[in-house]
Amino acid sequence: MLTELKREAYEANIALPKQGLINLTFGNASAIDRAQGIFAIKPSGVDYAVLKPEDMVLVDLDGKRVEGDLNPSSDTPTHRRLFLAFESIGGVVHTHSSCATAFAQAGRAIPIFGTTHADYFAGDVPVTRKMTADEIASAYEWETGNVIVERFRDLDPADYPAVLVNRHAPFTWGPTVAKAVEAAVATECIAHMALMSLQLAPQLEVIETELLNKHFKRKHGPDAYYGQKKA
Amino acid sequence: MLTELKREAYEANIALPKQGLINLTFGNASAIDRAQGIFAIKPSGVDYAVLKPEDMVLVDLDGKRVEGDLNPSSDTPTHRRLFLAFESIGGVVHTHSSCATAFAQAGRAIPIFGTTHADYFAGDVPVTRKMTADEIASAYEWETGNVIVERFRDLDPADYPAVLVNRHAPFTWGPTVAKAVEAAVATECIAHMALMSLQLAPQLEVIETELLNKHFKRKHGPDAYYGQKKA
Amino acid sequence: MLTELKREAYEANIALPKQGLINLTFGNASAIDRAQGIFAIKPSGVDYAVLKPEDMVLVDLDGKRVEGDLNPSSDTPTHRRLFLAFESIGGVVHTHSSCATAFAQAGRAIPIFGTTHADYFAGDVPVTRKMTADEIASAYEWETGNVIVERFRDLDPADYPAVLVNRHAPFTWGPTVAKAVEAAVATECIAHMALMSLQLAPQLEVIETELLNKHFKRKHGPDAYYGQKKA
Amino acid sequence: MLTELKREAYEANIALPKQGLINLTFGNASAIDRAQGIFAIKPSGVDYAVLKPEDMVLVDLDGKRVEGDLNPSSDTPTHRRLFLAFESIGGVVHTHSSCATAFAQAGRAIPIFGTTHADYFAGDVPVTRKMTADEIASAYEWETGNVIVERFRDLDPADYPAVLVNRHAPFTWGPTVAKAVEAAVATECIAHMALMSLQLAPQLEVIETELLNKHFKRKHGPDAYYGQKKA
Repeated sequence: MLTELKREAYEANIALPKQGLINLTFGNASAIDRAQGIFAIKPSGVDYAVLKPEDMVLVDLDGKRVEGDLNPSSDTPTHRRLFLAFESIGGVVHTHSSCATAFAQAGRAIPIFGTTHADYFAGDVPVTRKMTADEIASAYEWETGNVIVERFRDLDPADYPAVLVNRHAPFTWGPTVAKAVEAAVATECIAHMALMSLQLAPQLEVIETELLNKHFKRKHGPDAYYGQKKA
Repeated sequence: MLTELKREAYEANIALPKQGLINLTFGNASAIDRAQGIFAIKPSGVDYAVLKPEDMVLVDLDGKRVEGDLNPSSDTPTHRRLFLAFESIGGVVHTHSSCATAFAQAGRAIPIFGTTHADYFAGDVPVTRKMTADEIASAYEWETGNVIVERFRDLDPADYPAVLVNRHAPFTWGPTVAKAVEAAVATECIAHMALMSLQLAPQLEVIETELLNKHFKRKHGPDAYYGQKKA
Repeated sequence: MLTELKREAYEANIALPKQGLINLTFGNASAIDRAQGIFAIKPSGVDYAVLKPEDMVLVDLDGKRVEGDLNPSSDTPTHRRLFLAFESIGGVVHTHSSCATAFAQAGRAIPIFGTTHADYFAGDVPVTRKMTADEIASAYEWETGNVIVERFRDLDPADYPAVLVNRHAPFTWGPTVAKAVEAAVATECIAHMALMSLQLAPQLEVIETELLNKHFKRKHGPDAYYGQKKA
Repeated sequence: MLTELKREAYEANIALPKQGLINLTFGNASAIDRAQGIFAIKPSGVDYAVLKPEDMVLVDLDGKRVEGDLNPSSDTPTHRRLFLAFESIGGVVHTHSSCATAFAQAGRAIPIFGTTHADYFAGDVPVTRKMTADEIASAYEWETGNVIVERFRDLDPADYPAVLVNRHAPFTWGPTVAKAVEAAVATECIAHMALMSLQLAPQLEVIETELLNKHFKRKHGPDAYYGQKKA
């Protein structure tokens, strides 16, 4: 069932340690089939070295496991919340990549300091508010999704393919799970650059609006001219 | 004799340079057979590239070498002290991993700034007091174990699988030596993140108690729900 | 057509991720045949893992594509501008390597603090002024070339094989595209060292003139004695 | 002639990029045969990827090339000066490893903050004074050796197997060239740790004398007990 979807989710999951975004089992990726309302996600706590495509667990948008013997990732409710709220996305990735997590722990957005950042984001990488004791005590992972959705009340997830969950780490997404992995790589890369730019210029202002828009729109939207025309 | 134990200790030792935790011969791992009261440990100063499972030295809890032609690690008395004091542990790892060692050199605990840290520790990674001239002049490696044990007078080693020895470097442990390696990886990773978080927010407070407990108990203790049920 | 030129450009492009200078598709390299006035450049947005020598796009100095089905890099007009202005160069490389980009984002030149830097540059790695809204709104990539050329009004590109484009990232060059890759490696390396030297000594002065000249001239110009005599 | 010596020098040279100590051609290693007064050294500017044992150049202690078609490293006079002054050493290594070079550029010794450092050095890694314009203008590489020797007027090179040349980079040595490579690895490693310790504690004092001596003497001198007894 949904063999191709499971393969895509699997490929995304094993890309995370290869890209240096994951230590141990700190992370997971999922891909959704919108027609069927089912997503494939990593099983919880399984080592990437032994993971197989058929280990992916299939879960529906009500949170019911529809295939798979293994427990899905403990972060499954967060993925589900994002798939429900962000209808344009096809994949979600969660990592604890070091530089992005440093910003999340400090409760700071990643400031948009240059064109590398503007190639992927229409502004700072947003950070959520802290979760309340009640949210933590109840359906924690679902509520993690809720604080993300709350943060995006006035933001388009297509313009900001990542968020930092306060005290926690980044979640990223995209039209496909492969694009969500790319967003995770970009988020770590720009977090690293921002840390170093802040060392050089602690009061550095963000990039000028014209340059931000130029780079973002060069790659996104109807006037994009980066890359190859799709056949 | 104890072939499987020696293999486990060997696998843990060679994992250390693979994980980037060890330069040169700065580190060692040991695994204990509690029934026999014997542990297997790396021989002193042997290059990881040429290490073999049968090179592991077997030592009993009185410190007597019971098998092996090579000298055991010069840190053997520290391992022995920890096996005697922390009865629940099955393995010990010592590294000089760079970021954790930077905290040890500075005499600072690693502050618990986020959930990555809380997935492994119930609080800051503790640091020992400095050793006295007398302790250094007498049975130095045994006394190194003693300052660790002293630091844990009111801490459960199951809740804190690592310590920083002041001016020295981390020791980590776990129910198995493989888990002790995992704790060593986690310790280096959270030390790196903490360093960067401190650059971003020099006065950063530690994580809120509710979130700390949620993450720690998600993975540890009777209510853990991370990972797969054990058969 | 120009098979050898395309192979050189291809080799330079795939060297960039191998050297750790490129994440995702953040970068490109080109090589020129001066006799024919044609350069070979990476196609836009193509993954390095699947790139082939025959994918290189041939473009003339008027900006006309003379061979290739794929779109050339969106940065092609910048490369073209540099080939027109800097007649001695045979190759151009663009990366978003992390440390050099941190300086570019901060709008700071890389100060020449030691002999590693002086082996490649006759002074600080220059940074351009910011681009104006008009420049960004018009032929952006061509204007990017123009601000570089403006910055080099009183500099010899043979003495300074790299520039940081403000808010953006480095461009490097050399007599061959292989030398431009070498300049990109050197630029990232000295940016990393400069960041750390500034941490140690925030008010550090640049290298003394005599030592700068000694190292630069040891490797460049008529009195160079580094390396092997060319046959 | 001296095939084994050339092989040792070759192995040491190719170890440098493998250990991440060298970018491009920034470095060289040499090994001496004391009986014959001849040392084998890397040829100048040759890429490590194509280097062969038989490319090593043989030079005597008067600086005369006694075998080899290639030019020896431009740093050969520095190596020669060190072999003449430090009679106990069998090999010399020069790198521009990033963290150690950051200290050299800043003109600061690497402070001895912990036991990792004390396992290799009896104190701070010393830094030379700056070279004078006259020294730079005359026999520069020989004079580089002279400022090192001057710095060691009251130091034993066996107790301090490395030096930072001011504004330049580290030179290391040892009883064999393999040990000189090990000293280069250790120097970079402790420089990295020291940088991070200084971030955590800008006024950090150096390690207590008793602990320094304990660790240094555990590995060096008549009372050493680290490693395996030599047969």
